[in-house]
Amino acid sequence: MNLILLFQEDFILDNRVRLHGRRYEHAREILKVTNGKVLQVGLLGGKTGTGTVLSVDATTIELEVRLNKQPPEPIPLTVVLAMPRPKVFKRVLQGLTAIGVKEIILLNSWRVDKSYWQSPALEPEAIRQQLILGLEQARDTMIPSVHLQQRFKPFVEDTLPDMAAETCALVAHPGSSRPCPANVQEKVTLAIGPEGGFTTYEVEKLVAAGLTQIHLGSRPLRVETAVPALIGRLICCQ
Amino acid sequence: MNLILLFQEDFILDNRVRLHGRRYEHAREILKVTNGKVLQVGLLGGKTGTGTVLSVDATTIELEVRLNKQPPEPIPLTVVLAMPRPKVFKRVLQGLTAIGVKEIILLNSWRVDKSYWQSPALEPEAIRQQLILGLEQARDTMIPSVHLQQRFKPFVEDTLPDMAAETCALVAHPGSSRPCPANVQEKVTLAIGPEGGFTTYEVEKLVAAGLTQIHLGSRPLRVETAVPALIGRLICCQ
Repeated sequence: MNLILLFQEDFILDNRVRLHGRRYEHAREILKVTNGKVLQVGLLGGKTGTGTVLSVDATTIELEVRLNKQPPEPIPLTVVLAMPRPKVFKRVLQGLTAIGVKEIILLNSWRVDKSYWQSPALEPEAIRQQLILGLEQARDTMIPSVHLQQRFKPFVEDTLPDMAAETCALVAHPGSSRPCPANVQEKVTLAIGPEGGFTTYEVEKLVAAGLTQIHLGSRPLRVETAVPALIGRLICCQ
Repeated sequence: MNLILLFQEDFILDNRVRLHGRRYEHAREILKVTNGKVLQVGLLGGKTGTGTVLSVDATTIELEVRLNKQPPEPIPLTVVLAMPRPKVFKRVLQGLTAIGVKEIILLNSWRVDKSYWQSPALEPEAIRQQLILGLEQARDTMIPSVHLQQRFKPFVEDTLPDMAAETCALVAHPGSSRPCPANVQEKVTLAIGPEGGFTTYEVEKLVAAGLTQIHLGSRPLRVETAVPALIGRLICCQ
């Protein structure tokens, strides 16, 4: 937790918040705060800044906050990711949020186990928890949008072409002939398959929607490795 | 397991292996092999190729193997990583192996918890297990070297300068002014700090050893995200 994320309901005065539960415990047990200590804070959907500890008791902490900085710039990249297994899904969601992605689409694919779509990890509150952990890690306040697309064909035929248009639109597919570009200056749409990859039919549909096949070497990578490796490569960091 | 890794002791004839335990169970339960099925195999330290199933019984499987392909090219990149906590260490080791890194140095740092160095995850057999999982994932056979450097100063003063010489030598440090280069054509030496980063003193010592400070944006990332993001960006994939 590199930033304590604040919500509207935490405010007891214009510039004062009272925290309990997980954030309180983090401040008390990990940061070992005492009165006067200055913490990094940010308001969900708003600015970041500092929170000065006013009081700590057995269950709550009060901070005087000053929110005066813009959150970090989002990464202009939309991820279309074949639904990973639930444990990986949680980690990937957190990692995508931390790295600054704001549009995340989870897509069905032939090699996605049907049971993944029934996982409690996909419930809105479970997803939101992971996004918040990612924001806290990256000192960000702008929560990503997550869309679940359980039907491959309608999404790829009807929605993806418009989304891909006027972006650098790519599908990562080991074995394709073109290496992944680096430091892309324009907006990116990036599709990443499941363990085992998209099927040939699926790749054809993605290409028909306007995506170009690229690879990151010949090694099949786990989703947890492939996702940051591709994004780290693609983003244009100044 | 995208490749079944073979060891010399598996061979019962020049071109025949007998497998049991984990690899047997994978072949039987995940791949659901039957006689005649062709599997991807590779000999540790040697070539890759195919294994044709000759027989499957209650505890062993026999394959006729043909090893005729070179393993994938290593990535010309040495990682110097502040020792992560044990659970992360295991995953990072696997990920580094899968992505093709062959030289991995685990380094102490001010913000590394001393207890990490006592973890059973650092025992040679535990490390080897993770490396093997990484090779199996990436269809590789060349096991990385892993070095544990529990003393920061002697390593950085006496060993790192020679290691960094004539390479693109970098230390990832959020807040530095230069963005991480992409698609580097030469050999890379890459130092990555602990959660919370290297201290100012440590960064100065790394810079004195010949490393240049670079960043990947302003967001502090977890080691699991930062490592593949940096490597995916740096590698020159053809």
